[in-house]
Amino acid sequence: MSLFRQEIDKLTAYMPGEQPPPGTKVIKLNTNENPYPPSPKAIDVLRGLDEQSLRLYPKPYADDVREAVSDVLNVPAEWVLVGNGSDDLLTMIMRSALWSGKRVAYPSPTYVLYRTLAEIQQADVLEVPFGEDYSVPSEQLVSAGAAVTIIATPNSPSGTAASNDLLAGLAGKCRGLVVIDEAYADFADDNAMDLVSRFQNVIVLRTLSKGYSLAGLRLGFGVARPDVIEGLSKVKDSYNVDAVACMVGAAAIRDQAHKDSNVHKVKASRKVLSERLQDLGFRVWPSQANFLLVRPPAGDAESIYQSLKQRGIFVRYFKQPRLDDKLRITVGTDEQNAVLLDALGELVK
Amino acid sequence: MSLFRQEIDKLTAYMPGEQPPPGTKVIKLNTNENPYPPSPKAIDVLRGLDEQSLRLYPKPYADDVREAVSDVLNVPAEWVLVGNGSDDLLTMIMRSALWSGKRVAYPSPTYVLYRTLAEIQQADVLEVPFGEDYSVPSEQLVSAGAAVTIIATPNSPSGTAASNDLLAGLAGKCRGLVVIDEAYADFADDNAMDLVSRFQNVIVLRTLSKGYSLAGLRLGFGVARPDVIEGLSKVKDSYNVDAVACMVGAAAIRDQAHKDSNVHKVKASRKVLSERLQDLGFRVWPSQANFLLVRPPAGDAESIYQSLKQRGIFVRYFKQPRLDDKLRITVGTDEQNAVLLDALGELVK
Repeated sequence: MSLFRQEIDKLTAYMPGEQPPPGTKVIKLNTNENPYPPSPKAIDVLRGLDEQSLRLYPKPYADDVREAVSDVLNVPAEWVLVGNGSDDLLTMIMRSALWSGKRVAYPSPTYVLYRTLAEIQQADVLEVPFGEDYSVPSEQLVSAGAAVTIIATPNSPSGTAASNDLLAGLAGKCRGLVVIDEAYADFADDNAMDLVSRFQNVIVLRTLSKGYSLAGLRLGFGVARPDVIEGLSKVKDSYNVDAVACMVGAAAIRDQAHKDSNVHKVKASRKVLSERLQDLGFRVWPSQANFLLVRPPAGDAESIYQSLKQRGIFVRYFKQPRLDDKLRITVGTDEQNAVLLDALGELVK
Repeated sequence: MSLFRQEIDKLTAYMPGEQPPPGTKVIKLNTNENPYPPSPKAIDVLRGLDEQSLRLYPKPYADDVREAVSDVLNVPAEWVLVGNGSDDLLTMIMRSALWSGKRVAYPSPTYVLYRTLAEIQQADVLEVPFGEDYSVPSEQLVSAGAAVTIIATPNSPSGTAASNDLLAGLAGKCRGLVVIDEAYADFADDNAMDLVSRFQNVIVLRTLSKGYSLAGLRLGFGVARPDVIEGLSKVKDSYNVDAVACMVGAAAIRDQAHKDSNVHKVKASRKVLSERLQDLGFRVWPSQANFLLVRPPAGDAESIYQSLKQRGIFVRYFKQPRLDDKLRITVGTDEQNAVLLDALGELVK
């Protein structure tokens, strides 16, 4: 007899992108980390932390982060819920709104964690295929009548973004929660934060892992109406955000100039990388994120992925329908991108 | 129509012990924090962290902590699962083993989070009352036939511990998971870690919040057979432990001398505090933890709790049957305990 639920025994755990062993020298363009360092002001906070903060329990709602978000995004602090990464907020959403018989719907392909979390809740998962150009299949999502509808925008692995008009239309027609996962919004031309004040069923998720160069700190937040925040809080771990992440993260959020400067560099490099890849014959999807979805001229993505790995360049390959002829490449520094382009120039000629 | 599951709407969120507003000068004896600072070696690691560790995703299984636990407790690293606090491990246990129709059983009164987490899973919760002397009601727990049986030992709020003979008997007779929650084991005369190698259904939980003075860091771990670890990992957040907690926590675990020295001081103070309280007419339950469950001579616990609070001394009061005439008092420094005893001397005379 198993010690776990039958559904858990059947489940395959989510597999994060591979991390090179410590000490290995690689160009890491596979998990969409920011190539530039986090805010020096945040690092100062880390170095100056007092022992007291470690000895005592942290603030249950990570007030410093709530207040920093409130100041920077001009939303009330009570509209902000802080998570141990935005994955923690996705978990809270799934645990509080889904159960067997309840449906979750989202366009696919997208972040594969959505399915894992929904399956843990034994929910009915409806994956609606994106259009060929990665347009959002709005009508099918609305008619799904889901308890939770998720739109990742910019979407991973495509890098494409949904317009606010489309998102507003969706939010107005869906009766359940509408989750707008903006993990990559810092690199986009627009974002959907305004929708939170217009629709009571919308929650917008952000993370400090990408724009703020703090993937190691595990910090994300959601912005929604207070009654949504209250419902999610019921399944929140009592002290889900540690004191270090709370204080260092708040300082990083307040240092918008540093984040904006890094984002500016990444966007400039994205443009150049996209052009060079097209020169090499790659198809490149228009990206609003810090990565590019690309198709090699011969569609031999898996073999290129392996060859790059042998040269110490990690990119992401998804062995699944619709993606198995493509690669997802994180935008690195100009130096890293140049090494990548040299390697690809040899591999596709 | 609610945006959440009906059961979530009915749920009351777990209420952590109150934290005084920053800057207030209080004697904080209400949430069982260690009054002494964490390991200086751990603080050194914090101050010396490189930006790289924050910029990149952390290790999914917090390998540094796994290896430190493995070395210090002499268990294989693959038998260790690290959590964002031991609450995170309790969540993994409940999510992977419980569902509607499945039962969780534990002696009561105990840590109230068990009920909250079980109710989120819509599980059948069986709370079996402890004996008057807080002996564990083994037979009733076994005959409950639960999917998850939990024993907190030393138990909070009683401070009492179960013997390894009793725990071994229970583990051998229960068919489901047996969770031995040893959050306070660092202050006890004995612990049940050996049972993990003898029983395939046992998981022992530990935390760095108490003995290691690191409540603000959120770090806990579970030790169990690899197939138990594997099942729990399926519902683990991909990167549940941040890079800071991983590296600082590992250093703290390796500094056993520092932890042991703090524990030694707390145990000595516990003995003195217990004797003085008995001198004042309090009934004091025998404690193996860093707190005491006490009954004031007149049973007027709530009014004493309020009076202490007005004097800037926080202790814990539980307004629930069997506990509403008692207080749970964290063992502080000798200076803090002396201030508490002076105040109580005035309040109970």
